[in-house]
Amino acid sequence: MLAVGPLPGRRPARARWRERKENDIRILWVFAHPEPGSLNGALRDAGLKAVADLGHEVRESDLYAMDWNPVITAADYGDAAGRLVVGRDSAAAHASGTLAADIRAEQEKLRWADAVVVQFPLWWFGPPAILKGWFDRVLVQGFAHGVHADDGRALRYGAGPLSGRRVLTVVSTGARPETFAPRGVHGDLRHVLWPVLHGVYWYTGMDALEPLHVASADRATPADAERHAARLRARLAGLADERPIPYRHESGGDYDDDLVLRPHLAAGAAGLEAHLR
Amino acid sequence: MLAVGPLPGRRPARARWRERKENDIRILWVFAHPEPGSLNGALRDAGLKAVADLGHEVRESDLYAMDWNPVITAADYGDAAGRLVVGRDSAAAHASGTLAADIRAEQEKLRWADAVVVQFPLWWFGPPAILKGWFDRVLVQGFAHGVHADDGRALRYGAGPLSGRRVLTVVSTGARPETFAPRGVHGDLRHVLWPVLHGVYWYTGMDALEPLHVASADRATPADAERHAARLRARLAGLADERPIPYRHESGGDYDDDLVLRPHLAAGAAGLEAHLR
Repeated sequence: MLAVGPLPGRRPARARWRERKENDIRILWVFAHPEPGSLNGALRDAGLKAVADLGHEVRESDLYAMDWNPVITAADYGDAAGRLVVGRDSAAAHASGTLAADIRAEQEKLRWADAVVVQFPLWWFGPPAILKGWFDRVLVQGFAHGVHADDGRALRYGAGPLSGRRVLTVVSTGARPETFAPRGVHGDLRHVLWPVLHGVYWYTGMDALEPLHVASADRATPADAERHAARLRARLAGLADERPIPYRHESGGDYDDDLVLRPHLAAGAAGLEAHLR
Repeated sequence: MLAVGPLPGRRPARARWRERKENDIRILWVFAHPEPGSLNGALRDAGLKAVADLGHEVRESDLYAMDWNPVITAADYGDAAGRLVVGRDSAAAHASGTLAADIRAEQEKLRWADAVVVQFPLWWFGPPAILKGWFDRVLVQGFAHGVHADDGRALRYGAGPLSGRRVLTVVSTGARPETFAPRGVHGDLRHVLWPVLHGVYWYTGMDALEPLHVASADRATPADAERHAARLRARLAGLADERPIPYRHESGGDYDDDLVLRPHLAAGAAGLEAHLR
Protein backbone atom coordinates (compact mmCIF):
# COMPACT_ATOMS: atom_id res chain seq x y z
CA MET A 1 0.00 0.00 0.00
CA LEU A 2 1.53 3.27 -1.06
CA ALA A 3 0.70 6.81 0.00
CA VAL A 4 -2.98 7.32 0.63
CA GLY A 5 -4.54 10.44 -0.84
CA PRO A 6 -7.01 12.82 0.74
CA LEU A 7 -10.62 11.88 1.28
CA PRO A 8 -13.03 12.61 -1.53
CA GLY A 9 -15.02 15.76 -1.10
CA ARG A 10 -12.21 17.64 0.59
CA ARG A 11 -10.46 20.30 -1.42
CA PRO A 12 -6.87 19.06 -1.28
CA ALA A 13 -5.65 21.74 -3.66
CA ARG A 14 -6.98 24.54 -1.49
CA ALA A 15 -5.41 23.10 1.67
CA ARG A 16 -2.09 22.65 -0.05
CA TRP A 17 -2.20 26.09 -1.54
CA ARG A 18 -3.18 27.82 1.69
CA GLU A 19 -0.01 26.49 3.28
CA ARG A 20 2.23 28.14 0.74
CA LYS A 21 2.91 31.82 0.50
CA GLU A 22 1.68 33.23 -2.76
CA ASN A 23 5.18 34.01 -3.92
CA ASP A 24 6.54 30.57 -3.18
CA ILE A 25 4.81 28.35 -5.71
CA ARG A 26 6.81 25.58 -7.34
CA ILE A 27 6.01 25.33 -11.03
CA LEU A 28 7.01 22.57 -13.43
CA TRP A 29 6.81 23.80 -17.03
CA VAL A 30 6.43 20.99 -19.57
CA PHE A 31 7.06 22.21 -23.12
CA ALA A 32 6.48 20.06 -26.21
CA HIS A 33 7.23 22.10 -29.32
CA PRO A 34 10.11 21.35 -31.70
CA GLU A 35 10.93 24.97 -32.54
CA PRO A 36 12.20 27.40 -29.87
CA GLY A 37 11.75 30.22 -32.40
CA SER A 38 8.00 29.58 -32.71
CA LEU A 39 5.10 31.49 -31.18
CA ASN A 40 4.99 28.73 -28.57
CA GLY A 41 8.67 29.26 -27.85
CA ALA A 42 8.12 32.98 -27.37
CA LEU A 43 5.17 32.33 -25.04
CA ARG A 44 7.23 29.84 -23.03
CA ASP A 45 9.98 32.44 -22.64
CA ALA A 46 7.45 35.08 -21.60
CA GLY A 47 5.85 32.67 -19.15
CA LEU A 48 9.14 31.69 -17.52
CA LYS A 49 10.03 35.35 -17.11
CA ALA A 50 6.62 36.05 -15.59
CA VAL A 51 6.87 33.30 -12.97
CA ALA A 52 10.38 34.45 -12.06
CA ASP A 53 9.07 38.02 -11.70
CA LEU A 54 6.30 36.68 -9.44
CA GLY A 55 8.95 35.11 -7.24
CA HIS A 56 7.94 31.51 -7.92
CA GLU A 57 10.35 28.63 -8.30
CA VAL A 58 10.33 26.94 -11.67
CA ARG A 59 11.75 23.81 -13.26
CA GLU A 60 11.48 22.85 -16.89
CA SER A 61 10.90 19.75 -18.95
CA ASP A 62 11.59 20.90 -22.51
CA LEU A 63 10.86 17.56 -24.12
CA TYR A 64 12.39 18.26 -27.53
CA ALA A 65 15.50 19.81 -26.00
CA MET A 66 15.80 16.78 -23.70
CA ASP A 67 15.39 14.41 -26.66
CA TRP A 68 12.72 12.71 -24.54
CA ASN A 69 11.95 9.11 -25.54
CA PRO A 70 8.15 8.75 -25.67
CA VAL A 71 7.95 5.01 -26.38
CA ILE A 72 7.31 2.50 -23.59
CA THR A 73 9.49 -0.57 -23.92
CA ALA A 74 10.53 -3.41 -21.59
CA ALA A 75 13.80 -1.54 -21.01
CA ASP A 76 11.85 1.00 -18.92
CA TYR A 77 11.15 -1.68 -16.35
CA GLY A 78 14.57 -3.25 -15.99
CA ASP A 79 14.19 -5.53 -18.97
CA ALA A 80 12.31 -8.15 -16.98
CA ALA A 81 12.48 -11.40 -18.89
CA GLY A 82 9.34 -12.91 -20.38
CA ARG A 83 6.11 -11.38 -21.57
CA LEU A 84 5.79 -7.62 -21.02
CA VAL A 85 2.67 -6.62 -19.06
CA VAL A 86 2.88 -2.85 -18.88
CA GLY A 87 0.71 -2.24 -15.79
CA ARG A 88 2.21 -5.05 -13.73
CA ASP A 89 5.83 -4.55 -14.79
CA SER A 90 5.80 -0.76 -14.43
CA ALA A 91 4.30 -1.04 -10.93
CA ALA A 92 6.94 -3.60 -9.92
CA ALA A 93 9.79 -1.48 -11.30
CA HIS A 94 8.40 1.59 -9.54
CA ALA A 95 8.09 -0.26 -6.23
CA SER A 96 11.65 -1.59 -6.46
CA GLY A 97 13.14 1.71 -7.65
CA THR A 98 14.30 0.21 -10.94
CA LEU A 99 12.36 2.38 -13.37
CA ALA A 100 14.51 3.91 -16.12
CA ALA A 101 16.45 6.92 -14.82
CA ASP A 102 14.78 9.40 -17.19
CA ILE A 103 11.34 8.38 -15.89
CA ARG A 104 12.41 8.73 -12.25
CA ALA A 105 13.83 12.19 -12.92
CA GLU A 106 10.46 13.39 -14.28
CA GLN A 107 8.58 11.83 -11.38
CA GLU A 108 10.81 13.70 -8.96
CA LYS A 109 9.92 16.98 -10.69
CA LEU A 110 6.19 16.18 -10.39
CA ARG A 111 6.55 15.32 -6.70
CA TRP A 112 8.29 18.66 -6.18
CA ALA A 113 5.74 20.77 -8.06
CA ASP A 114 2.68 22.59 -6.74
CA ALA A 115 1.54 23.45 -10.23
CA VAL A 116 2.29 22.21 -13.71
CA VAL A 117 2.09 24.15 -16.94
CA VAL A 118 1.69 21.83 -19.91
CA GLN A 119 2.29 23.67 -23.18
CA PHE A 120 1.92 22.18 -26.65
CA PRO A 121 0.58 22.73 -30.15
CA LEU A 122 -2.57 20.68 -30.78
CA TRP A 123 -1.61 18.07 -33.38
CA TRP A 124 -4.39 15.84 -34.62
CA PHE A 125 -6.57 17.05 -31.77
CA GLY A 126 -4.21 15.86 -29.08
CA PRO A 127 -0.75 16.35 -27.63
CA PRO A 128 2.27 15.72 -29.86
CA ALA A 129 3.59 12.16 -29.54
CA ILE A 130 6.57 13.32 -27.48
CA LEU A 131 4.17 14.65 -24.81
CA LYS A 132 1.73 11.73 -25.03
CA GLY A 133 4.71 9.49 -24.32
CA TRP A 134 5.68 11.63 -21.33
CA PHE A 135 2.27 10.79 -19.85
CA ASP A 136 2.60 7.13 -20.92
CA ARG A 137 6.05 6.59 -19.41
CA VAL A 138 6.10 8.86 -16.34
CA LEU A 139 2.64 8.31 -14.83
CA VAL A 140 3.12 4.66 -13.87
CA GLN A 141 0.98 2.57 -11.59
CA GLY A 142 1.92 3.18 -7.97
CA PHE A 143 3.21 6.66 -8.72
CA ALA A 144 0.23 8.38 -10.35
CA HIS A 145 -2.59 5.84 -10.14
CA GLY A 146 -3.38 2.33 -8.97
CA VAL A 147 -3.21 3.38 -5.33
CA HIS A 148 -5.97 2.30 -2.94
CA ALA A 149 -7.48 3.56 0.27
CA ASP A 150 -7.67 1.31 3.31
CA ASP A 151 -11.22 0.31 2.41
CA GLY A 152 -9.99 -1.00 -0.93
CA ARG A 153 -11.41 1.64 -3.24
CA ALA A 154 -9.13 3.05 -5.89
CA LEU A 155 -8.01 6.64 -5.39
CA ARG A 156 -8.79 8.17 -8.75
CA TYR A 157 -10.55 11.18 -10.25
CA GLY A 158 -9.97 13.90 -7.71
CA ALA A 159 -8.00 11.73 -5.33
CA GLY A 160 -4.70 9.92 -5.55
CA PRO A 161 -0.98 10.39 -5.46
CA LEU A 162 -0.80 13.69 -7.36
CA SER A 163 -3.61 15.44 -5.46
CA GLY A 164 -3.02 19.01 -4.43
CA ARG A 165 -1.45 20.02 -7.70
CA ARG A 166 -3.10 22.06 -10.40
CA VAL A 167 -2.41 22.10 -14.13
CA LEU A 168 -2.64 24.94 -16.61
CA THR A 169 -2.75 23.75 -20.22
CA VAL A 170 -1.43 26.19 -22.81
CA VAL A 171 -2.48 24.92 -26.21
CA SER A 172 -2.10 26.45 -29.65
CA THR A 173 -4.19 25.67 -32.71
CA GLY A 174 -4.02 26.79 -36.30
CA ALA A 175 -7.79 27.13 -36.31
CA ARG A 176 -9.86 30.09 -35.19
CA PRO A 177 -11.33 30.11 -31.68
CA GLU A 178 -14.98 29.82 -32.73
CA THR A 179 -14.28 26.47 -34.42
CA PHE A 180 -13.41 25.07 -30.97
CA ALA A 181 -16.43 26.67 -29.29
CA PRO A 182 -19.20 24.38 -28.00
CA ARG A 183 -20.86 24.15 -31.44
CA GLY A 184 -17.72 24.63 -33.53
CA VAL A 185 -16.87 21.99 -36.12
CA HIS A 186 -13.88 20.62 -34.21
CA GLY A 187 -15.81 20.19 -30.96
CA ASP A 188 -15.63 22.20 -27.75
CA LEU A 189 -11.96 22.50 -26.75
CA ARG A 190 -12.83 21.13 -23.30
CA HIS A 191 -14.25 18.03 -24.95
CA VAL A 192 -11.41 17.65 -27.42
CA LEU A 193 -9.00 17.78 -24.46
CA TRP A 194 -11.17 15.53 -22.23
CA PRO A 195 -8.59 12.67 -22.39
CA VAL A 196 -5.94 15.04 -21.00
CA LEU A 197 -7.96 17.24 -18.61
CA HIS A 198 -10.14 14.53 -17.10
CA GLY A 199 -8.27 11.38 -18.10
CA VAL A 200 -4.73 12.39 -17.16
CA TYR A 201 -4.88 15.31 -14.71
CA TRP A 202 -8.09 14.66 -12.78
CA TYR A 203 -7.62 10.87 -12.83
CA THR A 204 -4.30 11.26 -11.01
CA GLY A 205 -5.79 13.77 -8.57
CA MET A 206 -4.59 17.00 -10.18
CA ASP A 207 -6.99 19.90 -10.64
CA ALA A 208 -7.46 20.88 -14.28
CA LEU A 209 -7.68 24.62 -14.91
CA GLU A 210 -9.49 25.97 -17.95
CA PRO A 211 -7.01 25.65 -20.84
CA LEU A 212 -5.46 28.79 -22.30
CA HIS A 213 -6.29 28.56 -26.01
CA VAL A 214 -3.85 30.26 -28.36
CA ALA A 215 -5.92 30.18 -31.56
CA SER A 216 -4.99 31.13 -35.14
CA ALA A 217 -1.37 30.52 -34.17
CA ASP A 218 -0.11 30.22 -37.74
CA ARG A 219 -1.34 33.71 -38.56
CA ALA A 220 -0.22 35.46 -35.38
CA THR A 221 1.24 38.94 -35.82
CA PRO A 222 3.70 40.40 -33.31
CA ALA A 223 0.72 42.24 -31.76
CA ASP A 224 -1.16 38.94 -31.44
CA ALA A 225 1.88 37.34 -29.82
CA GLU A 226 2.05 40.14 -27.25
CA ARG A 227 -1.69 39.81 -26.59
CA HIS A 228 -1.30 36.07 -25.97
CA ALA A 229 1.71 36.73 -23.69
CA ALA A 230 -0.40 39.17 -21.67
CA ARG A 231 -3.19 36.57 -21.34
CA LEU A 232 -0.61 34.02 -20.17
CA ARG A 233 0.89 36.43 -17.63
CA ALA A 234 -2.58 37.10 -16.20
CA ARG A 235 -3.30 33.39 -15.84
CA LEU A 236 0.06 32.79 -14.13
CA ALA A 237 -0.49 35.69 -11.73
CA GLY A 238 -3.86 34.22 -10.73
CA LEU A 239 -2.78 30.59 -10.61
CA ALA A 240 -3.50 30.14 -6.90
CA ASP A 241 -6.94 31.75 -7.06
CA GLU A 242 -8.51 30.08 -10.08
CA ARG A 243 -11.43 27.74 -9.67
CA PRO A 244 -10.57 24.46 -11.42
CA ILE A 245 -12.95 22.68 -13.76
CA PRO A 246 -15.45 21.09 -11.34
CA TYR A 247 -15.26 17.47 -12.43
CA ARG A 248 -17.03 14.98 -10.20
CA HIS A 249 -15.04 12.92 -7.67
CA GLU A 250 -15.14 9.20 -8.37
CA SER A 251 -15.69 8.39 -4.70
CA GLY A 252 -17.87 11.37 -3.84
CA GLY A 253 -21.12 9.43 -4.12
CA ASP A 254 -22.07 10.61 -7.61
CA TYR A 255 -21.16 7.28 -9.25
CA ASP A 256 -22.62 3.91 -8.30
CA ASP A 257 -20.65 0.75 -7.61
CA ASP A 258 -20.26 0.14 -11.35
CA LEU A 259 -18.84 3.67 -11.67
CA VAL A 260 -21.86 4.82 -13.64
CA LEU A 261 -23.33 8.25 -12.86
CA ARG A 262 -26.43 7.90 -10.66
CA PRO A 263 -29.65 8.49 -12.61
CA HIS A 264 -30.84 11.51 -10.65
CA LEU A 265 -27.67 13.49 -11.47
CA ALA A 266 -27.70 15.36 -14.79
CA ALA A 267 -30.76 13.23 -15.50
CA GLY A 268 -30.95 12.02 -19.08
CA ALA A 269 -27.69 13.62 -20.13
CA ALA A 270 -25.18 11.37 -21.88
CA GLY A 271 -22.54 13.90 -22.88
CA LEU A 272 -19.31 14.77 -21.12
CA GLU A 273 -21.00 17.75 -19.41
CA ALA A 274 -22.77 15.23 -17.17
CA HIS A 275 -19.44 14.68 -15.39
CA LEU A 276 -19.35 18.25 -14.08
CA ARG A 277 -20.54 18.90 -10.54
CA MET B 1 -3.73 22.29 -56.01
CA LEU B 2 -3.60 18.60 -55.27
CA ALA B 3 -6.20 15.91 -55.82
CA VAL B 4 -9.73 17.14 -55.29
CA GLY B 5 -11.97 14.93 -53.19
CA PRO B 6 -15.58 14.02 -53.80
CA LEU B 7 -18.38 16.49 -53.34
CA PRO B 8 -19.93 16.71 -49.89
CA GLY B 9 -23.13 14.80 -49.50
CA ARG B 10 -22.06 12.01 -51.83
CA ARG B 11 -21.15 8.73 -50.22
CA PRO B 12 -17.61 8.22 -51.46
CA ALA B 13 -17.12 5.11 -49.35
CA ARG B 14 -20.14 3.39 -50.83
CA ALA B 15 -19.11 4.16 -54.40
CA ARG B 16 -15.61 2.95 -53.82
CA TRP B 17 -16.80 -0.18 -52.09
CA ARG B 18 -19.37 -1.06 -54.75
CA GLU B 19 -16.60 -1.15 -57.31
CA ARG B 20 -14.68 -3.82 -55.47
CA LYS B 21 -15.69 -7.42 -55.19
CA GLU B 22 -16.39 -8.33 -51.61
CA ASN B 23 -13.41 -10.67 -51.51
CA ASP B 24 -10.97 -8.14 -52.86
CA ILE B 25 -10.67 -5.59 -50.09
CA ARG B 26 -7.26 -4.13 -49.33
CA ILE B 27 -6.71 -3.82 -45.60
CA LEU B 28 -3.93 -1.98 -43.81
CA TRP B 29 -3.55 -3.27 -40.23
CA VAL B 30 -1.85 -0.79 -37.93
CA PHE B 31 -0.79 -2.40 -34.64
CA ALA B 32 0.60 -0.46 -31.70
CA HIS B 33 1.25 -2.83 -28.81
CA PRO B 34 4.73 -3.61 -27.45
CA GLU B 35 4.06 -7.28 -26.65
CA PRO B 36 3.23 -9.82 -29.37
CA GLY B 37 2.34 -12.32 -26.63
CA SER B 38 -0.43 -10.08 -25.24
CA LEU B 39 -4.19 -10.37 -25.70
CA ASN B 40 -3.83 -7.67 -28.35
CA GLY B 41 -1.18 -9.74 -30.10
CA ALA B 42 -3.47 -12.78 -30.11
CA LEU B 43 -6.35 -10.70 -31.50
CA ARG B 44 -4.10 -9.27 -34.20
CA ASP B 45 -3.06 -12.80 -35.22
CA ALA B 46 -6.70 -13.94 -35.25
CA GLY B 47 -7.71 -10.90 -37.27
CA LEU B 48 -4.99 -11.37 -39.88
CA LYS B 49 -6.01 -15.01 -40.28
CA ALA B 50 -9.66 -13.98 -40.65
CA VAL B 51 -9.00 -11.45 -43.42
CA ALA B 52 -6.82 -13.98 -45.23
CA ASP B 53 -9.63 -16.56 -44.95
CA LEU B 54 -12.03 -13.96 -46.35
CA GLY B 55 -9.77 -13.60 -49.38
CA HIS B 56 -8.79 -9.99 -48.67
CA GLU B 57 -5.36 -8.51 -49.25
CA VAL B 58 -3.61 -7.25 -46.16
CA ARG B 59 -0.54 -5.21 -45.31
CA GLU B 60 0.76 -4.50 -41.84
CA SER B 61 2.29 -1.63 -39.94
CA ASP B 62 3.42 -3.23 -36.69
CA LEU B 63 4.78 -0.04 -35.17
CA TYR B 64 6.79 -1.59 -32.33
CA ALA B 65 8.25 -4.28 -34.62
CA MET B 66 9.16 -1.52 -37.12
CA ASP B 67 10.75 0.57 -34.35
CA TRP B 68 8.64 3.42 -35.67
CA ASN B 69 9.90 6.90 -34.76
CA PRO B 70 6.90 8.92 -33.53
CA VAL B 71 8.63 12.29 -33.06
CA ILE B 72 8.36 15.01 -35.71
CA THR B 73 11.70 16.75 -36.28
CA ALA B 74 13.12 18.99 -39.01
CA ALA B 75 14.87 15.90 -40.42
CA ASP B 76 11.45 14.65 -41.62
CA TYR B 77 11.29 17.56 -44.06
CA GLY B 78 14.76 17.43 -45.56
CA ASP B 79 16.37 19.43 -42.76
CA ALA B 80 15.39 22.75 -44.28
CA ALA B 81 17.55 25.42 -42.74
CA GLY B 82 16.02 28.07 -40.52
CA ARG B 83 12.98 28.06 -38.28
CA LEU B 84 10.85 24.91 -38.43
CA VAL B 85 7.19 25.56 -39.29
CA VAL B 86 5.61 22.10 -39.25
CA GLY B 87 2.60 22.77 -41.50
CA ARG B 88 4.50 24.74 -44.10
CA ASP B 89 7.62 22.61 -44.15
CA SER B 90 5.80 19.27 -44.20
CA ALA B 91 3.62 20.44 -47.10
CA ALA B 92 6.68 21.60 -49.04
CA ALA B 93 8.54 18.35 -48.44
CA HIS B 94 5.47 16.36 -49.48
CA ALA B 95 5.06 18.38 -52.65
CA SER B 96 8.71 17.96 -53.60
CA GLY B 97 8.85 14.25 -52.69
CA THR B 98 11.49 14.83 -50.03
CA LEU B 99 9.61 13.61 -46.96
CA ALA B 100 11.56 11.08 -44.88
CA ALA B 101 11.46 7.62 -46.47
CA ASP B 102 9.64 5.98 -43.53
CA ILE B 103 6.81 8.52 -43.81
CA ARG B 104 6.48 8.01 -47.56
CA ALA B 105 6.32 4.23 -47.09
CA GLU B 106 3.35 4.58 -44.70
CA GLN B 107 1.61 7.02 -47.02
CA GLU B 108 1.92 4.53 -49.86
CA LYS B 109 0.21 1.88 -47.70
CA LEU B 110 -2.65 4.29 -46.92
CA ARG B 111 -3.07 5.16 -50.61
CA TRP B 112 -3.27 1.45 -51.39
CA ALA B 113 -5.78 0.57 -48.68
CA ASP B 114 -9.59 0.43 -48.88
CA ALA B 115 -9.88 -0.10 -45.15
CA VAL B 116 -7.65 0.42 -42.16
CA VAL B 117 -7.71 -1.46 -38.88
CA VAL B 118 -6.12 0.58 -36.11
CA GLN B 119 -5.45 -1.57 -33.03
CA PHE B 120 -4.05 -0.33 -29.74
CA PRO B 121 -4.38 -0.47 -25.97
CA LEU B 122 -5.92 2.71 -24.57
CA TRP B 123 -3.16 4.41 -22.58
CA TRP B 124 -4.14 7.57 -20.72
CA PHE B 125 -7.37 7.66 -22.69
CA GLY B 126 -5.66 7.87 -26.05
CA PRO B 127 -3.41 5.99 -28.44
CA PRO B 128 0.09 5.03 -27.26
CA ALA B 129 2.70 7.63 -28.23
CA ILE B 130 4.08 5.42 -31.00
CA LEU B 131 0.66 5.51 -32.72
CA LYS B 132 -0.01 9.18 -31.99
CA GLY B 133 3.27 9.89 -33.73
CA TRP B 134 2.23 7.77 -36.71
CA PHE B 135 -0.70 10.16 -37.15
CA ASP B 136 1.53 13.19 -36.48
CA ARG B 137 4.22 12.24 -39.00
CA VAL B 138 2.33 10.42 -41.77
CA LEU B 139 -0.79 12.58 -42.22
CA VAL B 140 0.96 15.65 -43.54
CA GLN B 141 -0.59 18.66 -45.21
CA GLY B 142 -1.15 17.96 -48.89
CA PHE B 143 -1.40 14.22 -48.31
CA ALA B 144 -4.19 13.91 -45.75
CA HIS B 145 -5.50 17.46 -45.28
CA GLY B 146 -4.94 21.02 -46.41
CA VAL B 147 -6.36 20.29 -49.86
CA HIS B 148 -8.90 22.67 -51.35
CA ALA B 149 -11.70 22.47 -53.89
CA ASP B 150 -11.77 24.80 -56.89
CA ASP B 151 -14.05 27.20 -55.02
CA GLY B 152 -11.44 27.57 -52.29
CA ARG B 153 -13.13 25.66 -49.49
CA ALA B 154 -11.03 23.18 -47.55
CA LEU B 155 -11.84 19.52 -48.11
CA ARG B 156 -12.18 18.26 -44.58
CA TYR B 157 -14.57 16.26 -42.41
CA GLY B 158 -16.04 13.76 -44.80
CA ALA B 159 -14.12 14.99 -47.82
CA GLY B 160 -10.48 15.12 -48.71
CA PRO B 161 -7.59 13.02 -49.89
CA LEU B 162 -8.34 9.87 -47.91
CA SER B 163 -12.07 9.71 -48.74
CA GLY B 164 -13.47 6.34 -49.64
CA ARG B 165 -11.62 4.50 -46.90
CA ARG B 166 -13.12 3.23 -43.68
CA VAL B 167 -11.42 2.60 -40.36
CA LEU B 168 -12.14 -0.01 -37.71
CA THR B 169 -10.61 0.84 -34.34
CA VAL B 170 -9.82 -2.12 -32.09
CA VAL B 171 -9.12 -0.77 -28.64
CA SER B 172 -8.45 -2.56 -25.37
CA THR B 173 -8.94 -1.14 -21.89
CA GLY B 174 -8.23 -2.50 -18.45
CA ALA B 175 -11.55 -1.09 -17.28
CA ARG B 176 -14.95 -2.72 -17.50
CA PRO B 177 -17.26 -1.83 -20.40
CA GLU B 178 -19.88 0.00 -18.32
CA THR B 179 -17.27 2.54 -17.16
CA PHE B 180 -16.95 3.64 -20.82
CA ALA B 181 -20.72 3.69 -21.40
CA PRO B 182 -22.41 7.07 -21.95
CA ARG B 183 -22.68 7.76 -18.20
CA GLY B 184 -19.62 5.77 -17.12
CA VAL B 185 -16.96 7.56 -15.10
CA HIS B 186 -14.39 7.59 -17.93
CA GLY B 187 -16.82 9.07 -20.48
CA ASP B 188 -18.52 7.42 -23.43
CA LEU B 189 -15.86 5.59 -25.45
CA ARG B 190 -17.03 7.45 -28.58
CA HIS B 191 -16.33 10.74 -26.80
CA VAL B 192 -13.02 9.62 -25.33
CA LEU B 193 -11.96 8.65 -28.87
CA TRP B 194 -13.42 11.78 -30.51
CA PRO B 195 -9.94 13.16 -31.33
CA VAL B 196 -9.18 9.97 -33.27
CA LEU B 197 -12.58 9.08 -34.77
CA HIS B 198 -13.66 12.60 -35.76
CA GLY B 199 -10.36 14.48 -35.60
CA VAL B 200 -8.13 12.07 -37.49
CA TYR B 201 -10.29 9.72 -39.56
CA TRP B 202 -13.29 11.87 -40.49
CA TYR B 203 -11.19 15.04 -40.85
CA THR B 204 -9.10 13.33 -43.55
CA GLY B 205 -12.21 11.94 -45.24
CA MET B 206 -12.17 8.41 -43.84
CA ASP B 207 -15.36 6.87 -42.46
CA ALA B 208 -15.08 5.93 -38.78
CA LEU B 209 -16.76 2.66 -37.84
CA GLU B 210 -17.98 2.04 -34.31
CA PRO B 211 -14.87 1.01 -32.32
CA LEU B 212 -14.55 -2.58 -31.17
CA HIS B 213 -14.03 -2.27 -27.42
CA VAL B 214 -12.03 -5.07 -25.79
CA ALA B 215 -12.77 -4.30 -22.14
CA SER B 216 -11.34 -5.82 -18.94
CA ALA B 217 -8.30 -6.83 -21.00
CA ASP B 218 -6.04 -7.38 -17.99
CA ARG B 219 -8.38 -10.00 -16.58
CA ALA B 220 -9.19 -11.83 -19.82
CA THR B 221 -9.39 -15.63 -19.56
CA PRO B 222 -8.72 -17.85 -22.60
CA ALA B 223 -12.50 -18.03 -23.05
CA ASP B 224 -12.72 -14.22 -23.02
CA ALA B 225 -9.93 -14.04 -25.59
CA GLU B 226 -11.81 -16.42 -27.87
CA ARG B 227 -15.02 -14.40 -27.40
CA HIS B 228 -13.20 -11.21 -28.39
CA ALA B 229 -11.65 -12.97 -31.41
CA ALA B 230 -15.12 -14.05 -32.52
CA ARG B 231 -16.39 -10.47 -32.18
CA LEU B 232 -13.44 -9.26 -34.26
CA ARG B 233 -14.03 -11.89 -36.96
CA ALA B 234 -17.68 -10.84 -37.22
CA ARG B 235 -16.71 -7.19 -37.62
CA LEU B 236 -14.15 -8.03 -40.29
CA ALA B 237 -16.63 -10.19 -42.20
CA GLY B 238 -19.10 -7.30 -42.27
CA LEU B 239 -16.61 -4.55 -42.97
CA ALA B 240 -18.13 -3.54 -46.30
CA ASP B 241 -21.69 -3.45 -45.01
CA GLU B 242 -21.35 -1.47 -41.81
CA ARG B 243 -22.87 1.95 -41.48
CA PRO B 244 -20.16 4.35 -40.31
CA ILE B 245 -20.67 6.83 -37.48
CA PRO B 246 -22.79 9.54 -39.16
CA TYR B 247 -20.68 12.60 -38.47
CA ARG B 248 -21.73 15.77 -40.24
CA HIS B 249 -19.90 16.91 -43.39
CA GLU B 250 -18.10 20.22 -42.99
CA SER B 251 -19.30 21.46 -46.36
CA GLY B 252 -22.74 19.84 -46.31
CA GLY B 253 -24.52 23.01 -45.18
CA ASP B 254 -24.80 22.13 -41.50
CA TYR B 255 -22.04 24.55 -40.45
CA ASP B 256 -22.06 28.27 -41.14
CA ASP B 257 -19.19 30.27 -42.64
CA ASP B 258 -17.46 30.38 -39.24
CA LEU B 259 -17.75 26.57 -39.10
CA VAL B 260 -20.22 26.75 -36.24
CA LEU B 261 -23.23 24.40 -36.29
CA ARG B 262 -26.32 26.26 -37.47
CA PRO B 263 -28.71 27.04 -34.60
CA HIS B 264 -31.68 25.01 -35.90
CA LEU B 265 -29.65 21.78 -35.92
CA ALA B 266 -29.51 19.88 -32.61
CA ALA B 267 -30.92 23.11 -31.17
CA GLY B 268 -29.46 24.01 -27.82
CA ALA B 269 -27.12 21.03 -27.67
CA ALA B 270 -23.47 21.80 -26.94
CA GLY B 271 -22.10 18.26 -26.59
CA LEU B 272 -20.28 16.18 -29.17
CA GLU B 273 -23.55 14.40 -30.08
CA ALA B 274 -24.58 17.60 -31.86
CA HIS B 275 -22.08 16.74 -34.59
CA LEU B 276 -23.98 13.61 -35.60
CA ARG B 277 -26.36 13.83 -38.57
